[in-house]
Amino acid sequence: MNSILITGCNRGLGLGLIKSFLKLPTPPRHVIATCRNLQQAEELKSLAEQHSNLHVLQIDLKAIDQYENFAKEVETIVQDNGLNVLFNNAGVSPKSTRLNFTKSEDLTDTFMTNVVAPIMLTKALVPLLKQAAEANASAPIGPTKACIVNMSSILGSIEANSDGGLYAYRTSKSALNSATKSMSIDLKGNGIMAVALHPGWVRTDMGGSKAPLSVEQSCAKMVQTVMGLGEKQNGAFLQYDGKGLPW
Amino acid sequence: MNSILITGCNRGLGLGLIKSFLKLPTPPRHVIATCRNLQQAEELKSLAEQHSNLHVLQIDLKAIDQYENFAKEVETIVQDNGLNVLFNNAGVSPKSTRLNFTKSEDLTDTFMTNVVAPIMLTKALVPLLKQAAEANASAPIGPTKACIVNMSSILGSIEANSDGGLYAYRTSKSALNSATKSMSIDLKGNGIMAVALHPGWVRTDMGGSKAPLSVEQSCAKMVQTVMGLGEKQNGAFLQYDGKGLPW
Repeated sequence: MNSILITGCNRGLGLGLIKSFLKLPTPPRHVIATCRNLQQAEELKSLAEQHSNLHVLQIDLKAIDQYENFAKEVETIVQDNGLNVLFNNAGVSPKSTRLNFTKSEDLTDTFMTNVVAPIMLTKALVPLLKQAAEANASAPIGPTKACIVNMSSILGSIEANSDGGLYAYRTSKSALNSATKSMSIDLKGNGIMAVALHPGWVRTDMGGSKAPLSVEQSCAKMVQTVMGLGEKQNGAFLQYDGKGLPW
Repeated sequence: MNSILITGCNRGLGLGLIKSFLKLPTPPRHVIATCRNLQQAEELKSLAEQHSNLHVLQIDLKAIDQYENFAKEVETIVQDNGLNVLFNNAGVSPKSTRLNFTKSEDLTDTFMTNVVAPIMLTKALVPLLKQAAEANASAPIGPTKACIVNMSSILGSIEANSDGGLYAYRTSKSALNSATKSMSIDLKGNGIMAVALHPGWVRTDMGGSKAPLSVEQSCAKMVQTVMGLGEKQNGAFLQYDGKGLPW
């Protein structure tokens, strides 16, 4: 893999993914990490001082009108080789739980960050993904060609929902799964695949301290799963270790 | 069934559903039809002149701050018996198709009408649904007790998506399915059930002229399916004739 771009990297799973990709025996030539606020991304900046293949870009993903300019920034890094992997990781999880406490602003804000942003960012970066697929025309479908990985959650699985509640978060992740499936069909002809990935229940700000997986454990498995993606997984919903999940 | 409320009734499936419920051998004592603009709802108004059990209420479902007042209007109609069935039918379908033509405004507007509105309207009407469930405590789970029916679409099925595209519409209906499942769990203890319903491919403005089902055919089947709902269907995704669909 020549290049990967991961959104939402100043902490949590995004930061963990960056570290795991940098630790690969053969790390990508370009690891592009985005964060909303460079000033708050101390760890990311110090990583970039140690790793010349790490590029940190600042973007507020709610500013969709900035995506075209952002794609140009990415292009100056990856150049003619295009972008191999777009990992839409950035997401939010509001606190609202039961129907009675659900707020319309939580529903719309969560949808904006967890669904609209990854769809529109993917749209903006498709030309670079296409370029990578063309530059690696003889490679098999997968991360050495071109992949979109959307950070989903088991909470977006309608089938697996046995606890109810969480309207804003669940609807956003089910919607993202829906978009992932459409991407996997629409872009197949261009050699670009798409998957939805559940990180497991991880000890992050979002997952809480009781979660069974550390950020390092989840991210190491997710990187392994992403590196092993192939045609068979196109349009699938996978958990961190590659196991399939129901919609 | 004592009372049913259906949203988006000035044309298409909403109007068809109203006609089908009014045609039942024993029609509901109160059929409440909502429309955005009373002045444009000629057919609905003329139906109301012929059927004293039909109440036409005007509400712009995007005005969520009006829902509490709206619930009071509904209460003056159904009184102490509460509301047996809430049928969230109103919806939009923007024209955008492939990723390259997807607009963020289409995604957010569609989510607002197809997901946020039915969730928030359900929240506002839950007290009346609870009242109906309590007033019919000895009745089996179903429409004689209290039901939420959310108008979904097979296009919201992630599993059945083999054509891709339609990001705004598909994500909204997958998200609505996700919310339906949570409602079916959250409200079960109150004797209120929830299902997602696919109307089939129908000759409406949305379905186009090549669709195999007429509005009358689809609505007659949907009414039959709603009247036959029971505990077994709680949290299910059904098509017009009651057949189960994959998420």
